[in-house]
Amino acid sequence: MRGPPRITHWIMPVAGHFELLASDSQSAARRGRLRTAHGLVETPAFMPVGTQGTVKAVTPAQLREAGAQIILGNTYHLNLRPGPELIRELGGLHAFMAWDRPILTDSGGFQVFSLTKLRKITDEGVTFRSHLDGAEVFLGPRKCMEIQAALGTDIAMVLDECPPWPAKAADVRQAVARTLRWAKACREAWHDLEQPEKGRHLFGIVQGSNLPDLRRECAEALSALDFPGYAIGGVSVGEPEAEMLAAVQASAPHLPQDKPRYVMGVGTPPQLLKMIGLGADMFDCVLPTRLARHGCAFTPEGPMNLKNAKFARDPQPLVEGLDNYTCRHFTRAYLRHLTMCNEMLGGTLLSIHNLHFYLDLMTQARARLDAGDFTPWARAWCERYEAGAREVEAVPAEPGE
Amino acid sequence: MRGPPRITHWIMPVAGHFELLASDSQSAARRGRLRTAHGLVETPAFMPVGTQGTVKAVTPAQLREAGAQIILGNTYHLNLRPGPELIRELGGLHAFMAWDRPILTDSGGFQVFSLTKLRKITDEGVTFRSHLDGAEVFLGPRKCMEIQAALGTDIAMVLDECPPWPAKAADVRQAVARTLRWAKACREAWHDLEQPEKGRHLFGIVQGSNLPDLRRECAEALSALDFPGYAIGGVSVGEPEAEMLAAVQASAPHLPQDKPRYVMGVGTPPQLLKMIGLGADMFDCVLPTRLARHGCAFTPEGPMNLKNAKFARDPQPLVEGLDNYTCRHFTRAYLRHLTMCNEMLGGTLLSIHNLHFYLDLMTQARARLDAGDFTPWARAWCERYEAGAREVEAVPAEPGE
Repeated sequence: MRGPPRITHWIMPVAGHFELLASDSQSAARRGRLRTAHGLVETPAFMPVGTQGTVKAVTPAQLREAGAQIILGNTYHLNLRPGPELIRELGGLHAFMAWDRPILTDSGGFQVFSLTKLRKITDEGVTFRSHLDGAEVFLGPRKCMEIQAALGTDIAMVLDECPPWPAKAADVRQAVARTLRWAKACREAWHDLEQPEKGRHLFGIVQGSNLPDLRRECAEALSALDFPGYAIGGVSVGEPEAEMLAAVQASAPHLPQDKPRYVMGVGTPPQLLKMIGLGADMFDCVLPTRLARHGCAFTPEGPMNLKNAKFARDPQPLVEGLDNYTCRHFTRAYLRHLTMCNEMLGGTLLSIHNLHFYLDLMTQARARLDAGDFTPWARAWCERYEAGAREVEAVPAEPGE
Repeated sequence: MRGPPRITHWIMPVAGHFELLASDSQSAARRGRLRTAHGLVETPAFMPVGTQGTVKAVTPAQLREAGAQIILGNTYHLNLRPGPELIRELGGLHAFMAWDRPILTDSGGFQVFSLTKLRKITDEGVTFRSHLDGAEVFLGPRKCMEIQAALGTDIAMVLDECPPWPAKAADVRQAVARTLRWAKACREAWHDLEQPEKGRHLFGIVQGSNLPDLRRECAEALSALDFPGYAIGGVSVGEPEAEMLAAVQASAPHLPQDKPRYVMGVGTPPQLLKMIGLGADMFDCVLPTRLARHGCAFTPEGPMNLKNAKFARDPQPLVEGLDNYTCRHFTRAYLRHLTMCNEMLGGTLLSIHNLHFYLDLMTQARARLDAGDFTPWARAWCERYEAGAREVEAVPAEPGE
């Protein structure tokens, strides 16, 4: 039964899907709840990144035990391998990877612009060569929606053009214009594909680089399209932290209060708290899992590099009292041993810890927003972290993430 | 409280530690129960290999859920890294790796003879260069016992000399003579270190290559030393299967009926069933975990290479109805996808399945021994497996296993 005609969905695609439960009096921070076809997401929320149909090195059971409410999948990677039709045939991405909670998929645009060569961009879309085999691939707004519909995602992202950093103002302006055209085209295609009827949300993406006027213009134009949620993209592309925060500050206030706001691809734990203070509700980042595979653990006193010889005989857990599988059972000495031996279990145990650390930080933030003392708590948390923060080796991105 | 003087232990080190529960009427197969300081081991038993203080790619919780009763640790690797004193300081190998069930450690001899260069062997022991950093290391009977005592193992193995295959009769004779001298020295050192008082067993090792007379001589001489258990070593060193089985057949009947028999470093599933038929009770092998990391799954119809394109859209579990985490949740298509992407989760999920497959095979064997129809069942099992067995790519050994 289709019920009401499609026009209803166009006007109010998923009414009541986002509830604001509390607002901070000293910042723009909010406590919310997002309804999806696979369940609720309490915000602020962190989304572990499951690039190729797996959050690297952890099972769905471990992810669930670490407290993940929602994960992210990458359209670019899944489109190339194993392909959206295969995943659809096997019941969609949830069934394929045995994850029954919500999934958000990105549009693939970011990877096209950062991973591939020989790109040809027109208003119809972008043609590029696969980083796997060099095959020529086309991605346009409709194609992007078809792929995400085949994956059966709970939250799809519009195709956007993400300019590099730094970029010339004229290039940013052109990217914003194209991002807006594509956002409209994606929205139309998403409805043509009858995805809102399935409770599947489509989020718009604010671009505009470090230019506040363009950020505002883009946010306002997207808001007029009435998306069920909005992302702030084009951050964490190499710019300094101050500029990243400024981009969020230039975007968030111009997005609807009653819709979730997702800052894409960030960040460190203090950055997350600072962006929550600017009104952000959702985040995704590869840092917890990528650093884990390089022997680095997050702690309230900053990242801990287990390759450091001082941990060789350290009988303590990574973080005393933190209730995750890794901290309940294993010492720093053992985790260092696994890291030094390049044992896969090291990556798994550190990924479990780091993901739980991020997820637990969001749990704490939500509790502080409920209690009304988010801002002083977040300030103290960041001070402690930044005072203890040690230099972590720069870890290169991998093609599969 | 030390209680009785040590001589009591010398005569009967761990009385009643092994119980024979049933014997097969059509073969030498036995059903038994071995008592250790960390609990019971129902035999026939398979021991997953935890070379460097971790069974590769799986957590202790996953190992336990897969049904592992006992695992094996490698003295050679742990001695080099992180070192026995560090492990002792952190509470022993059980605490270090968070595994509270029994552990058997090998003597390191096999790795010294197979992994290292520049070996100098005398009756005192063997001097070799570490495969990690080239440092000169000495391993003799007493040192070998000291290391395993520091690890806090439940079952230690004597230092033995494992000749390569094929070997000249004179070399085998010399290796057997040295193995016997070292066995006596190890036994003495193990008692000096007061390990039997802690309920820790020391097993002798039968060598003798493919020479039945030497196998028998070695088995009988070891039996006279009254070890609480015996291993059959020098198998799975490159010889054909018939010769491997002949070596077991030449050794097992000359070992005491009332002690457990452990065949070291074997084998394929049918080999295990055949050796149970020859009177073997315990096994360890890297095959389930090593093949898992190369995309290969065990099934009752033989090994399945998931790189084969025919599994790309296969919605079935690896083995229908098998009750392990991997088979309950994931399709062959998904496991193939992870394998093709080199995702760590592929190695983890296939390791869980392969370990459970081996452990479940032992559970079935024990049930058949209890029921009295082991031999016809084992024959039918092997026929089905071997009829379906496909060629599996040869997978090279890795230094860390």
